[in-house]
Amino acid sequence: MGKSALILIDMINTYEHPDAELLIPSLRKALPHVVRLLERARARGVPVIYVNDNFGEWRSHHGEIVQAALAGPRAELVRPVQPDADSLFVVKARHSIFYETPLAYLLSQLDVDRVVLVGQVTEQCVLYSALDAHIRHLMVTVPEDAVAHIHSDLADAALLMMERNMHATITTAEAVELCVVD
Amino acid sequence: MGKSALILIDMINTYEHPDAELLIPSLRKALPHVVRLLERARARGVPVIYVNDNFGEWRSHHGEIVQAALAGPRAELVRPVQPDADSLFVVKARHSIFYETPLAYLLSQLDVDRVVLVGQVTEQCVLYSALDAHIRHLMVTVPEDAVAHIHSDLADAALLMMERNMHATITTAEAVELCVVD
Amino acid sequence: MGKSALILIDMINTYEHPDAELLIPSLRKALPHVVRLLERARARGVPVIYVNDNFGEWRSHHGEIVQAALAGPRAELVRPVQPDADSLFVVKARHSIFYETPLAYLLSQLDVDRVVLVGQVTEQCVLYSALDAHIRHLMVTVPEDAVAHIHSDLADAALLMMERNMHATITTAEAVELCVVD
Amino acid sequence: MGKSALILIDMINTYEHPDAELLIPSLRKALPHVVRLLERARARGVPVIYVNDNFGEWRSHHGEIVQAALAGPRAELVRPVQPDADSLFVVKARHSIFYETPLAYLLSQLDVDRVVLVGQVTEQCVLYSALDAHIRHLMVTVPEDAVAHIHSDLADAALLMMERNMHATITTAEAVELCVVD
Repeated sequence: MGKSALILIDMINTYEHPDAELLIPSLRKALPHVVRLLERARARGVPVIYVNDNFGEWRSHHGEIVQAALAGPRAELVRPVQPDADSLFVVKARHSIFYETPLAYLLSQLDVDRVVLVGQVTEQCVLYSALDAHIRHLMVTVPEDAVAHIHSDLADAALLMMERNMHATITTAEAVELCVVD
Repeated sequence: MGKSALILIDMINTYEHPDAELLIPSLRKALPHVVRLLERARARGVPVIYVNDNFGEWRSHHGEIVQAALAGPRAELVRPVQPDADSLFVVKARHSIFYETPLAYLLSQLDVDRVVLVGQVTEQCVLYSALDAHIRHLMVTVPEDAVAHIHSDLADAALLMMERNMHATITTAEAVELCVVD
Repeated sequence: MGKSALILIDMINTYEHPDAELLIPSLRKALPHVVRLLERARARGVPVIYVNDNFGEWRSHHGEIVQAALAGPRAELVRPVQPDADSLFVVKARHSIFYETPLAYLLSQLDVDRVVLVGQVTEQCVLYSALDAHIRHLMVTVPEDAVAHIHSDLADAALLMMERNMHATITTAEAVELCVVD
Repeated sequence: MGKSALILIDMINTYEHPDAELLIPSLRKALPHVVRLLERARARGVPVIYVNDNFGEWRSHHGEIVQAALAGPRAELVRPVQPDADSLFVVKARHSIFYETPLAYLLSQLDVDRVVLVGQVTEQCVLYSALDAHIRHLMVTVPEDAVAHIHSDLADAALLMMERNMHATITTAEAVELCVVD
């Protein structure tokens, strides 16, 4: 099966961007599934990696990204999924979780060859990250009930692209297998 | 001249690696020159960017790298150059400051086209970073009294390589020009 | 407006892959529009860059890719768009035209800041390349009648994603502006 | 031991650059050792990969790089090491053999984990390529009699840096082990 890592994409967020109103209803549905996967991953010792936009804040050592999100108007969307002491954290500046980040290096150090992508936005960062994982020969799983979208039609197309063109496993959060050994 | 950024390489450090004993005497000499450049850059509004190894700590949002260094046995080498509220911070996992980091993106966002490299180690990360800057068409300045080495013969060769093959300006900290406008 | 380059994606092809039968009808429709754009670009002195999969052939100095396509069963789809003496050629090994290729460097050398993407496959390489252009702050134009798809529903979604999320200009081949000066 | 590939760096060359006069005497000494390694690699079925600057020629499908070098004033330095039908060829635009090239991908496809670097220039492209191999966790061997330098003092320092800081095996061409199995 390969060793898995659970990747939370852009879940540390103040939700102040223009599309937030379209996104949040979808996110509210996905959130309990993300939380459940997070619990399972932590219980099994599967690496949990937050890959998060820095929102132009380049002083990530101050924990500003997490604090700003927890202090923001949408803290209830952040608190259930906040990092714990074992969480790994990679800051990204652009869309894909791999673009100019050390994520590929971190995954190789952890011997991970399958990434389970959850978070947002299905038809944007999740799609781009699935592509960039596939191009690097990593296997991809996307639980469709644990990713949130802005436009449902584009999200459906994105999930189909991931399955058909990037050989991703599209499944449900409950059915995701989290593998700790090769 | 081009707009400058001051880059502090691996200055947030616990100095527990095997070569620390060879490095520290050179670092003690360089430290006041780094501090003086840091003061000048802050006074002039020149961006100050810490690019620092994460030492395998992938939870950079906790400020662990800075705290660990300040709590370590060599805090006196860290305290004078610690980040302030305006400092930018990029975490690297490997030698070069550009390899799988968002530094190139950050510099382009800041319109920086000249990097002033200080810190350590002259014949290792400083050399590699100068090359990776040059390959990306950034101009490079290295004040030779503000970089620290492990082996002085290799450091001399590295400075010569940077000057001759990477067209770097090798100068003194005092003579460094910090440009804020194009 | 910015200086343009016309990018032909994977147009040098033997069309022996499993999806070729689905692709070719769409390609036949796109081909005359690609040819017309190619003529206009050549007439105006706009750089024409072929970015093409090497199909596992790593001996690209032999011109094998072009020769194999011209000698193949689908030469009539290749001959009208074959490179001329002024064409630039970048070999890619994976999906995106930017991934582990010198294309970004070539474009910066040519001072190009807008790429006009034509060729195949709309919902695969064209989409991925548009994203990778956008992430690098290049402007993107996609003439929708000069790109070919395998699945029309995914192609429509891909064009919408490019327009909405990557700020691409989706237009027709005839309406494409090819800019030679900044 | 790991599976090896023999990498010839910038050996396809017209030798018209300003430093050629300084380089050529060193190259003449290295050439027979490169030739001997090339013969051994071909005889054993070890992959031979030419990674070569394109000298601003972006039409590599025409075999222009090889033809120009063979037609140039220094053809006698090129003919003994020219590619054969089994040679692999990767074009680079900048110094390092890895920077914006598909070499890392090609090596992973070939399951190669040790690169044997020969060619030129010891204190420039060979040094930079050794670093970029090391940063990517590839093992590096450099036969010091099969690499050519411009400045012998910098070349000596470069070899020492590769050995000490990049854990490269510095040896002679005759002593190089070319491994075909893991």
